[in-house]
Amino acid sequence: MTRVAIQGEAGSFSHAAVIALYGSDGGVLPCASFEDLFRAVERGDAARGLVPIENTLAGSVHENYDLLTAHALSVVGETELRIRHCLVARRGATLQDVVRVASHPVALAQCRRFFSEHPALVAVPSYDTAGSVRDLMAGTLAADAAIASALAAELYGAAILAESLEDHPENYTRFLVVSREPVAVAGASKISLTFTTPNVPGALHRVLGIFAARDLNLTKIESRPLPGRPWEYLFYLDFAGDAPDHARSAVEELRAFAPMVRVLGMYPDRALSRAAGATPT
Amino acid sequence: MTRVAIQGEAGSFSHAAVIALYGSDGGVLPCASFEDLFRAVERGDAARGLVPIENTLAGSVHENYDLLTAHALSVVGETELRIRHCLVARRGATLQDVVRVASHPVALAQCRRFFSEHPALVAVPSYDTAGSVRDLMAGTLAADAAIASALAAELYGAAILAESLEDHPENYTRFLVVSREPVAVAGASKISLTFTTPNVPGALHRVLGIFAARDLNLTKIESRPLPGRPWEYLFYLDFAGDAPDHARSAVEELRAFAPMVRVLGMYPDRALSRAAGATPT
Repeated sequence: MTRVAIQGEAGSFSHAAVIALYGSDGGVLPCASFEDLFRAVERGDAARGLVPIENTLAGSVHENYDLLTAHALSVVGETELRIRHCLVARRGATLQDVVRVASHPVALAQCRRFFSEHPALVAVPSYDTAGSVRDLMAGTLAADAAIASALAAELYGAAILAESLEDHPENYTRFLVVSREPVAVAGASKISLTFTTPNVPGALHRVLGIFAARDLNLTKIESRPLPGRPWEYLFYLDFAGDAPDHARSAVEELRAFAPMVRVLGMYPDRALSRAAGATPT
Repeated sequence: MTRVAIQGEAGSFSHAAVIALYGSDGGVLPCASFEDLFRAVERGDAARGLVPIENTLAGSVHENYDLLTAHALSVVGETELRIRHCLVARRGATLQDVVRVASHPVALAQCRRFFSEHPALVAVPSYDTAGSVRDLMAGTLAADAAIASALAAELYGAAILAESLEDHPENYTRFLVVSREPVAVAGASKISLTFTTPNVPGALHRVLGIFAARDLNLTKIESRPLPGRPWEYLFYLDFAGDAPDHARSAVEELRAFAPMVRVLGMYPDRALSRAAGATPT
């Protein structure tokens, strides 16, 4: 069994992503914070960690970009999960029994239309989606229902009163799989790296050119401030392409230009691995 | 007097930035949310709005990037403010009298070292920095002191017990000045624009090349997800350069390539305007 550190309780969307990736072979180690998750993988308490890095509605999870830099873990894979919010209550309850609905503020914010269509319901912010279901079933939740994953309902023996509560159906979260040691993965067609640029005009254009010249396609760019160096940035880029040799020679050329380069990992593109039915690392 | 909409109470860091920009000529219209700020400028309740867009420690204010897209305001200027956190209490109070210290969670998080050096103090999250000082002086704050700007202490007649509480001295916030109508500004050397890229490899590299070829220097890049189009992005770029003609011809070339282009504004670079002692628009 691969033990995977996640942030949040069992039954969270991270847990659902672990099951999608590893099937029943994936045991989870719930962590209170993302910092705890990174530390658990560093210490070897879990073989892997699953880190949400961006959502198609909310954007990047900047805290986790910062944690990738603060820690020395390797990215060895990625996956994406459709986020489907369910209204979860005790078995036997009906929508008429529900007044207070608890969930994480981000989940509540993604279900605004549901609340405006049901004006009698009161949204109650809580610390966790799945944790709210657990507390509901334990009788310690200050609400009659929770918004969480279908997995949370199943895990804690609760009932699903309504499904797909989210305002936008195109609600996906991309997760990175992190590991203490780099893993040589057959078919690695994606590379994640971070770098600083020298203070010269056109620096980022030149960096992108290094990859474009090798047919490596930029799939994501993110920048974060460099503490202590106002208005300078650390860049995070993901490229997808067919030839690992091209990625290696691009990184070599980048190292000759950029003051700092770190390859976070090379791993299979999630779209390609789905098509090939690959086994996760 | 130029009336400027700000988010937060009088005495906030946004208010301090208005005074730095407009001097005593700047009256403020406090707004409860950033959305309210944009609406106030749209309606003409305020001639300008001052929008924090990035901080050198926390990074971009993504909500405000999204609001720039959701509203049709023009960017007509920018400024930056050094963020100095003060411990503010009632006159006559000493540090020994203080147990509970209230402030906005972001301000509290930027003063972690101060709290670890004063273990007797308890951090109490509140909705606003300056609002906490106002409530303190009105006797309605559930704390003995607040962390806020020196301006807030002055405005509400409070005392400053300690200054520069922030962990990192290099703590600056950059603000954009927004207006309902575009303003033709002499010496506009900066351009902010937003665009989508066609779905072809190397698209962003090609866009950056349009500007690099004209010696327009990229000073900031940000991307936000496009709702309903998973893993596609809206890009926000700022360029600085000497020749407005170059910026205009670059935008023309960009329009021929990108599916969507919007120029948010052309305005004087804050570094250059400081040097020239320019009057704000």
